[in-house]
Amino acid sequence: MKNSLLVTLVVLLFLSCGKKSNPEGIYVRDFAELNRAIKQVNPGGEIILVNGVWKDVQIKFFGRGTKEKPITLRAETPGEVFIEGQSYLHLGGENLIVNGLYFRNGYTPSTGIIRYKIGLDSVVNNSRVTNCVIENFTQPSRSMSDRWVEFYGKLNQMDHCYIAGKSNDGNTLMVYHTGNENTNNHHQIVYNYFGPRPRKGGPRAETVRIGNPQMTPGYVNVSNNYFEACNGEVEIVSDKADFNIFRNNIFYKCEGSLVLRHANYGTVDGNIFIGGDESDFYGGIRLVNTGHWITNNYFYKIKGREFRSPLAVMNGIPNSISNRYKQVTDAVIAYNTWVDCKSPWQFGIGQNRESANVLPASEIRSLPPIRTTIANNLIYNTQVDKAPLVDHDSINGILFKNNIIDNNGVEYSEFSVLQNKKIKMKQVNEWLFVPQDGQNEFLNDVFNGYDFGRIQQDLFGDSRTKKSRVGAINQLSTAEKFVIDKKKYGPDWFSTDKVITEPNILSASSAEGELRKMIEHAKTGDVVELSDKVYNINSSLKIDKEITIRSKTGNKAQLVFTGEENTPAFEMNPRGIIKLENLSLKGQNNQLAFAPLNENMSAAYKLFIDNCVIEDFSYMLKASKGSFADTINVNNTTIQNCENGIVLAADEKGDYNAEMVTFNECEFINVKRNVINFYRDGYDESTIGGFLTLSNNTFTSCGGKEESGLLINTRGIINVNIIDNTFSHNPVKLVALLWGAKNNHHSNNTLIQSGQIKVEEQQELDILY
Amino acid sequence: MKNSLLVTLVVLLFLSCGKKSNPEGIYVRDFAELNRAIKQVNPGGEIILVNGVWKDVQIKFFGRGTKEKPITLRAETPGEVFIEGQSYLHLGGENLIVNGLYFRNGYTPSTGIIRYKIGLDSVVNNSRVTNCVIENFTQPSRSMSDRWVEFYGKLNQMDHCYIAGKSNDGNTLMVYHTGNENTNNHHQIVYNYFGPRPRKGGPRAETVRIGNPQMTPGYVNVSNNYFEACNGEVEIVSDKADFNIFRNNIFYKCEGSLVLRHANYGTVDGNIFIGGDESDFYGGIRLVNTGHWITNNYFYKIKGREFRSPLAVMNGIPNSISNRYKQVTDAVIAYNTWVDCKSPWQFGIGQNRESANVLPASEIRSLPPIRTTIANNLIYNTQVDKAPLVDHDSINGILFKNNIIDNNGVEYSEFSVLQNKKIKMKQVNEWLFVPQDGQNEFLNDVFNGYDFGRIQQDLFGDSRTKKSRVGAINQLSTAEKFVIDKKKYGPDWFSTDKVITEPNILSASSAEGELRKMIEHAKTGDVVELSDKVYNINSSLKIDKEITIRSKTGNKAQLVFTGEENTPAFEMNPRGIIKLENLSLKGQNNQLAFAPLNENMSAAYKLFIDNCVIEDFSYMLKASKGSFADTINVNNTTIQNCENGIVLAADEKGDYNAEMVTFNECEFINVKRNVINFYRDGYDESTIGGFLTLSNNTFTSCGGKEESGLLINTRGIINVNIIDNTFSHNPVKLVALLWGAKNNHHSNNTLIQSGQIKVEEQQELDILY
Repeated sequence: MKNSLLVTLVVLLFLSCGKKSNPEGIYVRDFAELNRAIKQVNPGGEIILVNGVWKDVQIKFFGRGTKEKPITLRAETPGEVFIEGQSYLHLGGENLIVNGLYFRNGYTPSTGIIRYKIGLDSVVNNSRVTNCVIENFTQPSRSMSDRWVEFYGKLNQMDHCYIAGKSNDGNTLMVYHTGNENTNNHHQIVYNYFGPRPRKGGPRAETVRIGNPQMTPGYVNVSNNYFEACNGEVEIVSDKADFNIFRNNIFYKCEGSLVLRHANYGTVDGNIFIGGDESDFYGGIRLVNTGHWITNNYFYKIKGREFRSPLAVMNGIPNSISNRYKQVTDAVIAYNTWVDCKSPWQFGIGQNRESANVLPASEIRSLPPIRTTIANNLIYNTQVDKAPLVDHDSINGILFKNNIIDNNGVEYSEFSVLQNKKIKMKQVNEWLFVPQDGQNEFLNDVFNGYDFGRIQQDLFGDSRTKKSRVGAINQLSTAEKFVIDKKKYGPDWFSTDKVITEPNILSASSAEGELRKMIEHAKTGDVVELSDKVYNINSSLKIDKEITIRSKTGNKAQLVFTGEENTPAFEMNPRGIIKLENLSLKGQNNQLAFAPLNENMSAAYKLFIDNCVIEDFSYMLKASKGSFADTINVNNTTIQNCENGIVLAADEKGDYNAEMVTFNECEFINVKRNVINFYRDGYDESTIGGFLTLSNNTFTSCGGKEESGLLINTRGIINVNIIDNTFSHNPVKLVALLWGAKNNHHSNNTLIQSGQIKVEEQQELDILY
Repeated sequence: MKNSLLVTLVVLLFLSCGKKSNPEGIYVRDFAELNRAIKQVNPGGEIILVNGVWKDVQIKFFGRGTKEKPITLRAETPGEVFIEGQSYLHLGGENLIVNGLYFRNGYTPSTGIIRYKIGLDSVVNNSRVTNCVIENFTQPSRSMSDRWVEFYGKLNQMDHCYIAGKSNDGNTLMVYHTGNENTNNHHQIVYNYFGPRPRKGGPRAETVRIGNPQMTPGYVNVSNNYFEACNGEVEIVSDKADFNIFRNNIFYKCEGSLVLRHANYGTVDGNIFIGGDESDFYGGIRLVNTGHWITNNYFYKIKGREFRSPLAVMNGIPNSISNRYKQVTDAVIAYNTWVDCKSPWQFGIGQNRESANVLPASEIRSLPPIRTTIANNLIYNTQVDKAPLVDHDSINGILFKNNIIDNNGVEYSEFSVLQNKKIKMKQVNEWLFVPQDGQNEFLNDVFNGYDFGRIQQDLFGDSRTKKSRVGAINQLSTAEKFVIDKKKYGPDWFSTDKVITEPNILSASSAEGELRKMIEHAKTGDVVELSDKVYNINSSLKIDKEITIRSKTGNKAQLVFTGEENTPAFEMNPRGIIKLENLSLKGQNNQLAFAPLNENMSAAYKLFIDNCVIEDFSYMLKASKGSFADTINVNNTTIQNCENGIVLAADEKGDYNAEMVTFNECEFINVKRNVINFYRDGYDESTIGGFLTLSNNTFTSCGGKEESGLLINTRGIINVNIIDNTFSHNPVKLVALLWGAKNNHHSNNTLIQSGQIKVEEQQELDILY
């Protein structure tokens, strides 16, 4: 990957400062000493936090270093100073350096964990945070909002940090632009590792956000970072300021896109987007507004649709207010490569004239992109893509020049803007396909558009000035040398490699206490096997790790829950994963089979149920407000004689209670109401928006007490598929009321005395922004 | 005035290119030769237009010069090559120079007279137009739209040009920003003389406009220009792009403001605004949006109100669309001086919550300025100003620091944001007041706000880095050397000094033909004197210059118009000014006393009538669509026995038919309808908006056939004053229906059997934009 000289120099300069011997090191052992040191330290001095756990430290690091003599706050040994509890580190002044801290087991009681500002008058400038980790330092509740890194001031840097595990409300890293002291700031966000951010189930979960929709100049440089599984919402990066640069980043299996949202004149150059077959939500680049240059990017198996399309050029709203959708104008999309992506080019995304009856005029995106050049791009498919280009409105305002497609050898002629060629391609590694050198002569015929001279290198740094080839990669020989070196990103002392251990298989006798203890002491991933006896459970089992409970024999083990009224048999805690196999779970008609905590659900839980019987409960599952199930997967299971079924309807304002909900080959018998109630209040396009799949199930004699008249309530849920089910003798008005304009479908269901499935094309929405 | 080194260097560089001897001059004598030369000329070559009139030449000057060897198109002798008729000069390519042309007696059949673009693909870059004049090269009709200078491309320059007399629709100079080839353009508009632009009577009459409301980067430099009587509309300069610079310009008696309309991060530094007592419309600086720096500006006798206030900081609209009003944020207004201005500081201009019933929410300006610093400014008054600061909403979002006022020694304490001091001031010239050096020590106490270090010089180039003083001027000794040198602006061969000649006094006998010939042959300003006989006029008299017709004796001379039905006695042509004194003008009941041409009213006319009798006409005055009377002033005159009075109601879409309409001590008797009908359709705040003053008149037995029920119709007119009149026996429902929210007033009128004067606070408006 090519190097940005400037970034390299800045980094080298900082490194040389950070590594030099320290003539004035002040070792501090507690918070009081630290504060004294902050007051005393002189330019050029170092404050050294001794190794160990620092709990509940709310550090206000104010100092005025100089360019030559910065003031450093560092770990005695990088990675061995743990900041825990209710803690943060806020910086103010000039020329500060922070090095080697590890934030874990806690959360910030303020807005930021690392904040480049202390108070109203004390932003920091020319300062750097390096070599730090923030891991799972998330608020106790999903609905509590914070940002983990808050950039203020000017010319600040974050590099070689690892940041992962934010599951609460708010972007992970935010660059503030409000106020002259924060605009035009030239911040550097480089060589960081943005680790997994789980699906949030609601908006405001970007990994990086720059600016407000006020179109301030930024010149923020987000380059050479590694983003992995940043799945918080539809935007991995949300750019809302002008002149920002996104270069040489790797987006590895992220369920979102790099979005030029309210930005202008963005540069998106030399980034790699790696997807795969396992998710339809990996995204690419989405653009709104004016003057963006999208060059030298490489996309592999990006299969997102709509807002997550590999290239999503949006439609604008006439006379749009700042925080909606301005028209795309004057964009340049050149020298990019898409390999095995699904419908990679999508123009006029968001066009919604058909919603004119349910949305105000100020929400109708009716302006297709104009004055836009798309040239010298390459699409290569090893399997035929039926629609490489999707035109949602009009592509008349786009100049297409010298774009090449090899659609697995099958001619693609719609729109006539792609030239079909047979490309001799070499697969360099799992995801990297590069045209052979010295062949494919047609790739040398490139269009030289207005100001194309500024595209000086290819994805891997090969010069384009003398010879340039269609697609992101100029020559194979350079590309073959490229490997993703994860050591480049994040702290050198921190590894994301996980030790994989075999799960323990534990056998529980039917003594209640033994099962409970086994679950308590199991390590995550362990399996508890039950004999086919009756297990009486007299109070909730706490699930805060991954546990499989299954029958050791071919018969179903019998679990009988005798806990108190309104308590769950399985209490799902943050990060709790329960897998039940071949069990019977029986209640006393007034309890819950499963429920998350009522509060402090700081992270998602998952439920996998296979070949079970669940009966005689008040609820099979009832979500609490603020709780979130990443996955609920129920297979080949009977749910019967329950007052309520699955209720995921406790949240509001765009948040929702579960992402992937699947029932396959299940039987619902005599579930009296809320058989499935999966609900989202409001709609904002930021999220996957909930997924409900019902296939091959039977619903019999359910809904007898259902007041809504709806057997399956999916209101506000974006993706619903009801297929091959049998609904028999359910006394409801409708089995389901689907949202036609979204991804709601039904087919091949058998309906016997159960009402119908109705599709409403448009739903009236509460718009959230 | 301080010099911008960059501008000076650029100018010097260009001058040295332009003046060098020409080894490759191609003299051309006609259009065909010119076109051949354009095709043939090489880099470094010159095309020389021979002296004389070039009529109907639509020049497309395409060439590719180099930086070292530009291609020049120039006049044989600067100022002696006249471009006339339907002509223009459009440029395309690179490194061109145009020098010494004089555009007059014609108009462009295209969009621009001088345009930095030929066709869709041929903008020009790095090119310069210098030393040219465009004078009255205006469209035949006011409603035909064009721009006179159209900037496209990048790095182009216009300098030392004189441009004046545009009276038709469209800004005088427009800088286009649409398209990547036109943004971020760094154009130079320097050392030009923008001469008088008359009031247009409608919007779209700015002198300089930069950009669209799309917030593209400009870096356009508008510096060292002289603006005189640029009265087209409320905006002299309308800035709609980002990062533009307005420095060291002089605005001399201009009825408008320098407006940062849809711009951000504008620099307005070291400009001088000179007003006077004779107009309440001279304006200052008005700002909208974010990040502007207003420094070192000097304002003298600027008395505009509302949008034209000396400093107008506007209120914004929540979530404003781009082309309305964004909130003012992060502005810095420092080191400026206001001398003898009227209520110079106005905050929250445009606040209109009270219009919520008649305007949509998207038009309500309810956001006052925030995060704004106002520091080190000086207000000095030789007469007490009751309200130096007017707060239309809230000034809580503004930081006021070290601002000083000397309100003629009278304490001003409202708002507590101005310190009262007695300043020892020296008057350097008619408009320049400077604090004495070595005294007024309190002026040395300045606030050092965020980034104030960038304010390096004062208005006249004195360094602020070591010592800085409140107000625009750091020291008297430098200021005393400053004079406005008009020779710096515009071409050196062109002078705006007018030769003043005494008018001829001509005596006409009562022979009709003699009077007509005398008017035809008179030079502008001449006086025709009549004896007290009867002058029969059998067809319209054409007035296309300034003519005074008056009685030589004490008695009224008798003019009897016997021309055809529906023709006027006086046919007002563009620039026609008629002054009638002590006459009687009598029609045959089916003609008009005065009327402009029905079309091609390319410029305004004026009417002055004193001590006359006008009777027996179908109309006293009827405006045609597209016509515009700058002034209608009727004094001590009787208008009687007419079917209609004065009808100024032919235009639409914000345009209107007259600016200043005054009747004083007149008698209206038996005017059957449309006694006065002065109407504006739509409203856009760009213009003075019409002025009607009725004082000390009597209206008797008028309106007998009036269908509207209104004697005086002023709908849509912004400024109406009805005072000390007597309305007697006029059979109408209302004498007038006034617009209370605007500048409509009435007082001390006597109403006898004539209906009432009603005031409606809000009118429902057609908004135009």
